[in-house]
Formats: sequence, C-alpha cells, structure tokens
Amino acid sequence: MSTKPLAIIAGAGTGTGVSIAHRFSRAYNVIILSRSSASIDPVISAVEASGGAAYGIPTDVSSEASVTAAFKAIKAKYPGSPTAAAVFNAGSWNRAPFLETALDDWERVLGIQGPVTRGAGSRGAFLFSKATIPLLLESKHLEYPPTLIFTGATASVKASANFTAFAAGKWATRALSQGLAKEFGPQGVHVSHAIIDGIIDVPGTKEWTFDDEDAKISPDAVSLVSPNIRDRRGELTVGHGKIADAYWHLHTQPRTTFTWELDVRPYVEKW
Amino acid sequence: MSTKPLAIIAGAGTGTGVSIAHRFSRAYNVIILSRSSASIDPVISAVEASGGAAYGIPTDVSSEASVTAAFKAIKAKYPGSPTAAAVFNAGSWNRAPFLETALDDWERVLGIQGPVTRGAGSRGAFLFSKATIPLLLESKHLEYPPTLIFTGATASVKASANFTAFAAGKWATRALSQGLAKEFGPQGVHVSHAIIDGIIDVPGTKEWTFDDEDAKISPDAVSLVSPNIRDRRGELTVGHGKIADAYWHLHTQPRTTFTWELDVRPYVEKW
Amino acid sequence: MSTKPLAIIAGAGTGTGVSIAHRFSRAYNVIILSRSSASIDPVISAVEASGGAAYGIPTDVSSEASVTAAFKAIKAKYPGSPTAAAVFNAGSWNRAPFLETALDDWERVLGIQGPVTRGAGSRGAFLFSKATIPLLLESKHLEYPPTLIFTGATASVKASANFTAFAAGKWATRALSQGLAKEFGPQGVHVSHAIIDGIIDVPGTKEWTFDDEDAKISPDAVSLVSPNIRDRRGELTVGHGKIADAYWHLHTQPRTTFTWELDVRPYVEKW
Amino acid sequence: MSTKPLAIIAGAGTGTGVSIAHRFSRAYNVIILSRSSASIDPVISAVEASGGAAYGIPTDVSSEASVTAAFKAIKAKYPGSPTAAAVFNAGSWNRAPFLETALDDWERVLGIQGPVTRGAGSRGAFLFSKATIPLLLESKHLEYPPTLIFTGATASVKASANFTAFAAGKWATRALSQGLAKEFGPQGVHVSHAIIDGIIDVPGTKEWTFDDEDAKISPDAVSLVSPNIRDRRGELTVGHGKIADAYWHLHTQPRTTFTWELDVRPYVEKW
Repeated sequence: MSTKPLAIIAGAGTGTGVSIAHRFSRAYNVIILSRSSASIDPVISAVEASGGAAYGIPTDVSSEASVTAAFKAIKAKYPGSPTAAAVFNAGSWNRAPFLETALDDWERVLGIQGPVTRGAGSRGAFLFSKATIPLLLESKHLEYPPTLIFTGATASVKASANFTAFAAGKWATRALSQGLAKEFGPQGVHVSHAIIDGIIDVPGTKEWTFDDEDAKISPDAVSLVSPNIRDRRGELTVGHGKIADAYWHLHTQPRTTFTWELDVRPYVEKW
Repeated sequence: MSTKPLAIIAGAGTGTGVSIAHRFSRAYNVIILSRSSASIDPVISAVEASGGAAYGIPTDVSSEASVTAAFKAIKAKYPGSPTAAAVFNAGSWNRAPFLETALDDWERVLGIQGPVTRGAGSRGAFLFSKATIPLLLESKHLEYPPTLIFTGATASVKASANFTAFAAGKWATRALSQGLAKEFGPQGVHVSHAIIDGIIDVPGTKEWTFDDEDAKISPDAVSLVSPNIRDRRGELTVGHGKIADAYWHLHTQPRTTFTWELDVRPYVEKW
Repeated sequence: MSTKPLAIIAGAGTGTGVSIAHRFSRAYNVIILSRSSASIDPVISAVEASGGAAYGIPTDVSSEASVTAAFKAIKAKYPGSPTAAAVFNAGSWNRAPFLETALDDWERVLGIQGPVTRGAGSRGAFLFSKATIPLLLESKHLEYPPTLIFTGATASVKASANFTAFAAGKWATRALSQGLAKEFGPQGVHVSHAIIDGIIDVPGTKEWTFDDEDAKISPDAVSLVSPNIRDRRGELTVGHGKIADAYWHLHTQPRTTFTWELDVRPYVEKW
Repeated sequence: MSTKPLAIIAGAGTGTGVSIAHRFSRAYNVIILSRSSASIDPVISAVEASGGAAYGIPTDVSSEASVTAAFKAIKAKYPGSPTAAAVFNAGSWNRAPFLETALDDWERVLGIQGPVTRGAGSRGAFLFSKATIPLLLESKHLEYPPTLIFTGATASVKASANFTAFAAGKWATRALSQGLAKEFGPQGVHVSHAIIDGIIDVPGTKEWTFDDEDAKISPDAVSLVSPNIRDRRGELTVGHGKIADAYWHLHTQPRTTFTWELDVRPYVEKW
C-alpha cells in the first residue's frame, strides 16, 4: 500500500535500530538508512518475518550528497506516502586520551567524515533533520503527531575523561534536538531525545559480563527472528516494554503532552 | 477480587489524579488518598463507571498519623493484595514575594502543615515513600516491576522569582525521587519523576485562555464520565496518550529499561 | 567603629566558616551566628589575632525566635551599621538507608528541628534569608553590591543512595538561592550559591587520608592563628586563593557581572 | 624579559578579549591570536599603554595549519617562556530558522570553516586545546596552577529556537571543557568554563538600549585607554571586578580549590 505512512530510521545497524524498525513496522512502512547492506539485510528480514515491510538504502548520513540521494530514492519508492516518524539512531564512538585525539577523530565524531557507523555524529543528525523536518511538517493530519527522535547516551549530558570528543558530538546533537523541539513543537512536530544510560545488550557487548541478571538494556522484541539479539540469559523478551516501546510511546503522545527527553537505564546501573 | 494488585494514589483530587486513577484501574484496584470526600467521590464514580474498583481514604499525607492510619485501612480492606504501583500526585502551591512569605508558608510548602491539597510538599512525599516502598519491595513477582511515580512541575528544575518556596518543596521532592531511584532501582523497584511543564486543563485553570488549540495539557481520558475535565474545546479525548498514559508507560517498563525522569508539555509551551 | 559595614555569617563552626569570617573581617565587622560558644570562640580569636573584629551570638538558625533575637542583638551592638554581606554556611548532614530515616531525621535535615550544626538545612536558610535580605536591600550605597552567599555541596545537585534526606535539604536550599537571585538581583542584591565538591580539610575529616597531596579543599588562610586548620601537609597556606577567596570574589563582583553559582573541588576529585 | 610566563588568548577582538588581555598583562606577556591586525592592534595598544607587553599573531583558529604556525611563532618569539594561562574567547554566531541553516552554516558554527570571528566554534576550541595543554602541563611550577578558560554563553546550556546551530557549537565546546577538566585537573591543569549570560557592552551592541543602568555586562577595566569600551553611561569602569577579574580569580585558584564553571550576568538579566 503505497500511501501507508513511513518511518525513516537512520543507523539501523545496531540492536536498538533493529528493534525500533520492528516496532514501528507494525504501523508503518519502514525505511532503513544504514551504511552497508550487511547491516540493512537483517533488519529487513526481521521486519518481514513479522509481516511488516522495510526498505533499505545504503547511506552515509554524514554526506550531504548521500542523504540527498537517499531521500530522492524514498520519494521514488513511496510516492505520496506521508512520513509519520523519523529516528536518528546513528552513532559515533571515540575513546582516547585527549592528546592522542587527532583532528580527524574530532571531526569524525562531530560528524564530518567517515562511515555512518563510525562517524554520524552531529553532522549526520543535522543532515537527517534537514531532510526529515519538511516531510514531518506535511504529516500533521496523521493519527499521531509527526515525530523526530534522537538516540542519546550518558555522554550526552556528561563529558568524561578520555571521552571528550565523543561527548562533544553527543552534546551538540542534544542541543540540536532541543532547539528543534522548541522551533517545531509549536508547529506540531514532536522532537524528542532519549538518553540511553547503560550497556545495550547487542553482540558487540556480549563479552561484557555482570553479576546481575538483566544488567544490560534489552533493546528489542525480536528475539524470535534475530537470535543474536536475545537477552543474555537466552530468554525470550517478546512483549516487554523496551527501548523501542519507549520510542513508540513518545510517538503516540498527543500534542497536548509532548515529552522532549527521557532517560532509560538498567535497574542495576550506577548513576 | 481481594488479591488483585493495588495502585495507591495520593492527591487524586486534580484532573491528573482522576486520570491516573482511571488509567491504572484497568489493571488494578485503586486506592485514593485525598483530603476530603469531595475530592474522592468523583474519582470513585469515574473509575466505577468504566468497570473498575476504587476505594478512597480521606488522608492528610503531611501527617504521619494520618498516613499510618490510611495504610492500616488499606491492609484491612485488601488483605494479602500486593501493591503494584504508587503515585504521589499531591501538590502544594505558593506564589508570593519572598519577603511576604511567612515561615508557615515555607513549612506548608515544604510539607509540614496544612491540608493535602495545599501543603503535601516534600513531607507528604517522604511519608508516602516510607509507607509504600516496603509494600513495593514485596511485589517483584508481578507482571511489571513495582513502581513509584512522583508528579513534578517546571518549578522542580527552575526556581522563579515569587515562587521560591514552591520551588524549594519541588526541588526537595525531586531529590527524594532521585535518591530513591538509586537506592531501590537495584532492588527492583522503579522510581520515576515526571516534570509536568504547562498548565493542566482542569477546572481551576479554565479561566486562563490561549490563542492556540490544545494549549493546555489534557490530563485524562475520562471525559465521558467527568465532563468537567474535557479538554477546552469540549471535544472528547478518550483514546489519546495523555499524562496518565505516560505514567502507565513508565509502570510497564521492564527492569532492563527504567526511566527515572521525563518531561511533558503542550506543544505551544515556551521553554 | 560602629558604622563599619557588617558581614553576618551563619554556621561559622567549621573550617570554612572560620576562613570566611577571617577573610571578610579584613573589610567588615564580622558577626558569627553559631550554636555554641565552643564554636564561636575560635573564630573570634582568629579574627582578632589578625586585627579584625568579630562578635558571636549563640543562635539556633532553625528557630525563628532564636534568629529574631540574634538580629535584635546585632542591631543593638552595631546601631546604624549597614550589612555588606551575609553568608549561610550552616550545615546539616544525614547518611542513612531511606527506610531507616525517621520523619524526625527528614525534618531535621529539611531544617525543622535540632541544633544548628546538625539541622540548619533549608529552614535555617529560609529564616536567615528573611532576616538578612531587608538589611542588604538598604546597603546598595556601599563599595560592593550587598551579597548573600549560600554554601552548597555535591549533594545540592545530585541525590545519592543513602543520602536522600540530606540531598532534599540541599536541593531545597539551592532552589531558595536561585529564586532569591532572580527576585533580588534586579533590586541590586547579589545572591550566590557555591557548590563545594569534595572533602573539606577540617579536623573532622582528618582521619580520611588520600594518596595525593592537596586532595582536600583547604578552606582558609588562617593557619598561623588556628593551627588545627592548616592543610594536611602541615604547610602554611596563607596568601593562596581558597574557598573564602572565592566568596570574597563573589562579593566584589559589580552588578554588571553577578555570578549566581560556581563549583569548587580539589584537583584530584572524581566527578 | 624572555622567561616571563605567557598568557595566550584566542579571539581577542571583542571587548571581553581586550579586557582579559589587559588584566593578564599585569602578570604575563600576552599573546593575541585573532583573525586580523585590525582586531589585534587595539589590544596591543591597550596593553602597552598600561605598561604591559602583548604580541599579536593573525590566526584562523579553525585552521590546523594556521594554529600550528601560530604556536611555532610563539615559541620563536618567547623561547623558554612557560605558559601560565590560555583563554579561548573566540566566538561563532548564527541566528536563523533551522530550515534556512545551510550545512555550511552548521559547519562554520561547529568550527569547520570561516574566519575566527565568525566561526571558531568547537573546532577552534579543539585545536587551541590541543596546542595549549602540552604547554600548560609543563608549567606546574609557576605561582598559580596553569589554567585554560573557555568563554561560553547562555546558549552553552540552553538551545533556543532559531539558535540551534549556534547552541550546538556552544554545547560541544562546553563538553570539551568538562572532559578536559576531568582529564587534566588531576594532572594539575585547571580547566574552566564561564557562561556569560547577557549582552556584553561592546560597540557591536551599542544600539541595544535598556531601561536600567548597568544593564549590560561591562567586560573590562581599560576605559581609559580604549574609550570605545566604556560602559554605556560613558562613565569610567576602572577598578571594578568584571569578567576579566572573574577569569583572573579562576586563574589564581590553587589546586585544592578548582572551579570548573561559573555563570555571570548583569543584575537586570531575566533568567
């Protein structure tokens, strides 16, 4: 159905991205912008396995040309479809003593260079916002207010030693989300920022162990179709409220009740 | 059914309290602690009209004796029932130039004296926490993690001129919620704080008008049974995500994904 | 000289209080409000040893009657003297698991009961503000804008497990300081809040040892006259900028350049 | 005297920069990094008129090559001189509806392109930090701990509609300062961030008028030598504590008492 609304997700290569895609695909056609087919394909499989539709576009969200091409492809694929939601979930990462941080690292984390999975940072967030806000402004007639959500981290509110560049990119993105919330909220677009505080339970962190059960945030509800993303005890997690459910809750808030920011963390997290 | 879990709500006299009671009564027997029968009766009517059960206990939550008596009454009424959720929604209010603020006003707002609706403040929040946390700690076997939610306001994070005493009570309560979240989160109890930024659309604020539709937060989903709490356009609001839905979402978060704080405001709110 | 301006300091029993008294006594007659003669006498000795004048009044700043009596005594002692500065440095302290915190503890920390050194909290801060602001409003003709400074702590911005009650009192006091800054700043009174993050190097913490030199904040510049308050290496610290110097800097800021809040911590402090 | 310590100031073209240069020149040889001779010359004149020494190097602090060349020139000019203080005072500015903000604007504000006075942003802050921290680490034997201070703004903590890009650059710079404070504080380098909240009284804001006297922050103490920077009433401001005095106070704090952040604003500022 070509006029089913769209949910456009940048950075779907992580467990959180897969989970968000899965959750939003219950209501919308999902578009995945991610660097490589390798990260896109599992998302599409997961969504289709539960009866949804997803369409992936290899994209470097830190490249203006790549983003422009991606949104042209979306329009060609789904002409006339309104955009109900957009999620910026692309991440950058940097851990280094400051004096070993090169300008290239700084700019990569601030979003100037490099692939999505390494350097989406604030430039990617800027380009994604520029591309999606005009689409969201046209979608105020849908069931829920059009929504733009950014995935943040503890580093979005706290700069730690050896994570200075990483934090700078995260703080810039949080500022972006707050400025957009104030500018476009009164125009009916809901802009949110989620601070994910804790280790997300995805394959990349599997080697990190904890004494407590449930010590990591479980990002998703797709264990059945994507066994790598089960929680660490190997139990199924379908049906529980998770990060993706929090994002969906944000999306369904009416314009009388917009949340700009919430934090989520595992119950054992020290903070 | 005597072993159906309980939701205990302090300060149900406002539109937000009615709405929370109504939402939580879909799953739980609701206990209302409020100062007078006049504020309790409409809540019970609203809950019962939609098939739920509510039990009201006139209580001054700023009085240790009154709170003790209330929880004794709860135990007598529902022996053996676990407590699934507790919501502290009692409010204090004070607007005055500082030099016209008497010690009695300060203490009332900090929660030392006076009726629930005028002076629950941080003392009420303390007494309510002391009474409910032991009950919540025994409820970890239920479907959702046991939950304690506090209703905050913009004044919880910002002290304005002429609202100094009000802010002091709100900041103290927010500190309470954060300390409890850190102490009891690892024990499986979910403690949250919701910052309600904006004018809640209840009768007391009806005379405040705005240029925009939906300019006030609509607290509830019970317009059919409580016509005074319809939104200002007089339209029905049933089925929309509202403050009470946000509280319910918090309650349903699994322990892998606890939110301590979120803000909510109408889309037109300046911030 | 009876018309020399006054600096009124509450809670001068700690090293920080002694140091502030000493620093401000270079320009003003100092009034010390503290619970007992035992805490007042060393301050007076320290001030007088360096040529200043100090006058102590045993006061329970959490008691309205005691505060009223103290300010009546100040007026009798120094008729016609303007008040240049007031510092609220009285502290409360509480460390306890929440469920072991009695209402009395809560109220003591929020400032309702008990002696100054144990329970000044927010009630003391309120009473001290009410007593000093009218005096400060009459002192705008002095060399520096009249100033009211509150001593805060890390707990003023962060509530930790087992410090919930302590944090509640500190957050309330910080709210008080912010509301007062906004209300009385435009009237020419400078209200500030200093967040002291770290262990202050006073006798009570002498048994706490650290690997690093200078690991504790040195509160003062009075080592010569008060050997107990030398820094832990036993070296003299006269002439260095310290907490008291920061307070003095705040006091000397012109009304074009008011600081509401600053943090101070030892260089080795983790934060 | 070639081994007199150095104070290196980036962005000295504004009133604040001139004032800081003037203040620090009482103790140090001052180096000015600014885009053009036009902005450098008045600083040098002001410093020399009061008996100090200043050396200007036209620099684009957002260019790695330009910054490298500047520090090579400093070393050639003052071989063997330790660096006592570094101040990053270069500013970027952008006010535009988000959808009219081009990627070039975003990157300029984040610090990627353009002249110092328009686009130093976070890239300039990064490059300046990389260049100065190694010098500061070698200066721990001086009278005061070596110090790196960043000039922030209200936009450093609050992103407003139409100032989104500006805020993103400011938040990134504040994150940088916090990460550096945590990493290099324990190594003895004092890193601070000053939030300047209000309109600074420099020629560029002369046309903004206010009802209150002293409504703008007066940045300096050099009215006698730089008449353009008198306060708006045309009165002399020499001798008052000003922004530069706050920076100097930060610099003189001993390592037992480091302030990371303070805010300054005129007494009439609404906040």
